[in-house]
Amino acid sequence: MNQSNGYHVAVVGATGAVGQQMIQTLVKEKFPIRQLTLLSSARSAGKKVTVDGVEHTVQEAKPESFAGVDIALFSAGGNISKELAPEAVKHGAIVVDNTSAFRMDQDIPLVVPEVNEQDLHQHNGIIANPNCSTIQMVVALEPIRQKFGLKKVIVSTYQAVSGAGAVAIEELQNQTKAIINGETVEPKILPVKGDKNHYQIAFNAIPQIDKFQDNGYTYEEMKMINETKKIMHLPELHVAATCVRLPVAVGHSESVYFEIEEDGISANEIKELLKTAPGVVLQDDPENQLYPMPANCVGSNDVFVGRIRNDLNEGRGFHMWVVSDNLLKGAAWNSVQIAESLIKLGLIKEKK
Amino acid sequence: MNQSNGYHVAVVGATGAVGQQMIQTLVKEKFPIRQLTLLSSARSAGKKVTVDGVEHTVQEAKPESFAGVDIALFSAGGNISKELAPEAVKHGAIVVDNTSAFRMDQDIPLVVPEVNEQDLHQHNGIIANPNCSTIQMVVALEPIRQKFGLKKVIVSTYQAVSGAGAVAIEELQNQTKAIINGETVEPKILPVKGDKNHYQIAFNAIPQIDKFQDNGYTYEEMKMINETKKIMHLPELHVAATCVRLPVAVGHSESVYFEIEEDGISANEIKELLKTAPGVVLQDDPENQLYPMPANCVGSNDVFVGRIRNDLNEGRGFHMWVVSDNLLKGAAWNSVQIAESLIKLGLIKEKK
Repeated sequence: MNQSNGYHVAVVGATGAVGQQMIQTLVKEKFPIRQLTLLSSARSAGKKVTVDGVEHTVQEAKPESFAGVDIALFSAGGNISKELAPEAVKHGAIVVDNTSAFRMDQDIPLVVPEVNEQDLHQHNGIIANPNCSTIQMVVALEPIRQKFGLKKVIVSTYQAVSGAGAVAIEELQNQTKAIINGETVEPKILPVKGDKNHYQIAFNAIPQIDKFQDNGYTYEEMKMINETKKIMHLPELHVAATCVRLPVAVGHSESVYFEIEEDGISANEIKELLKTAPGVVLQDDPENQLYPMPANCVGSNDVFVGRIRNDLNEGRGFHMWVVSDNLLKGAAWNSVQIAESLIKLGLIKEKK
Repeated sequence: MNQSNGYHVAVVGATGAVGQQMIQTLVKEKFPIRQLTLLSSARSAGKKVTVDGVEHTVQEAKPESFAGVDIALFSAGGNISKELAPEAVKHGAIVVDNTSAFRMDQDIPLVVPEVNEQDLHQHNGIIANPNCSTIQMVVALEPIRQKFGLKKVIVSTYQAVSGAGAVAIEELQNQTKAIINGETVEPKILPVKGDKNHYQIAFNAIPQIDKFQDNGYTYEEMKMINETKKIMHLPELHVAATCVRLPVAVGHSESVYFEIEEDGISANEIKELLKTAPGVVLQDDPENQLYPMPANCVGSNDVFVGRIRNDLNEGRGFHMWVVSDNLLKGAAWNSVQIAESLIKLGLIKEKK
């Protein structure tokens, strides 16, 4: 950090739930940083953030904030990305954008390094980081696709509130406390901050993440469907998703049904494959009640997979349970990992 | 209650989470009771329970407890049912058993009145009440099967802790309180009281309900699979289940994917059908964020269905979200409803 060589890194949205994890991940992963610039919306500008023992003042993100920046990690909402990511590129920065602003743009790679790192070669300054629930699923599915082919995916998610930001974590905590004490608190954030109605999340399950589209699916569900096809280069893949919010602070879980192309494959063969798959930790020992759980995944960069079993009717069908820290592999770590891949592939040069 | 005509009803497991709901449901539904006998294991015998203003002392359930009983509602664990249900039948009682002891017995009807009430005609003294998560799903699926046929079901559940008894509700409450206060509490009940390991349920999701079978499925998952086929009289139906425990006290939710036999059916036709289906309340208006949630279903006998939408790839495929009070329609209310059906069908005579 602040070494004489390395990169000038900007974090946009530095005070948010994901931004905070981005900063911690840069430090933890010893990302080669020459200079760190912390940016945010006008609302959060002026806040102090201590990074690796050094106090930084968060500045309001403006076009000129990106002068001299090599890599800008954006996680301050789609509107800020739409406005400022092109400005950052104009100033010579490469943008890794964690919002949904550019994900489905044909000219912008949508990257999970374990799956499609090579797509980074096509970048034009902006690389999109996929939706959190998509990332952990494709990390688990890609080794299966490579070896056995992949035809169909039906996923039901069990998502943590931190996906809706730090305010949602706070809402879960305050609401839980109030209910335990026999008090009432009016829900104000979840399921979607900008939507009409807000519902209790403590001791509840809400089958809505993001707003609804006209087809009855939520944007979150359509993100999982469309992003999975794009990342895996499988435009014809059958994908269906139901996304549900739980009273869990951090850690998304997914019940994934999938069908492969090959016949006669056993669950044990899938387990063997995932044992050595990049980014995956297999936790699958029913006899000893070993399976992934959100409470155990917090703070880890890995995607945990368990409960792998053959479908009882469909020979090519399988079920599995996929859990990961949605703020890390689902957001901050995948973004930093993309930056690391850019360096590894020689796609970014440090400006001196 | 305690009128001169009506039935002598025994509740076995009267102090448990479901037993308590059975007693309240009998009162609320004005079930014609001449005499009420509350029974339990030796451990809970002697406890006082006030029913409709009258104090009852819970007695230890023994073979002779059933002398003169017309209807015995069992919910005190599979072992007590296996031992005492046949004794109750010998004494002339009809047993409605809420445990898994007899559910897959070929000679014993497994009944959800909205689906297969007529199976009661085949009873030999014992009628089995299905698993809670099975009941709410088949209530939603049966009208669809009747009109459009049913080929395949893939369900992922979001189950409340009360399915594991009153001790599990207590564990969720105490654990939540401790975590909120920064204390630690050693998990002792969930996921399965009699299994080797116990895990935190507060702010977590546990992909295990009941013990594991050798095929990698839990008993709960196999119950959903086998019971659904039996109740719906569809031995060839493709059913798959993944069962997950949530930090919710009461109210099971289910993400259900299903395929029908007919082509060209729209989600709106499924919605129209479920609007008037017995036992179903349709809550499906995405524009106004109307969908079922466990926090809203507590205390209702109904099965709430929403988020109905066509699959985007499979023309005969649909998704829906099904929520119900697992202690009521999932247990107590379905049992009392079976007793009401027995009376309606003339299958039980009151002894004077």
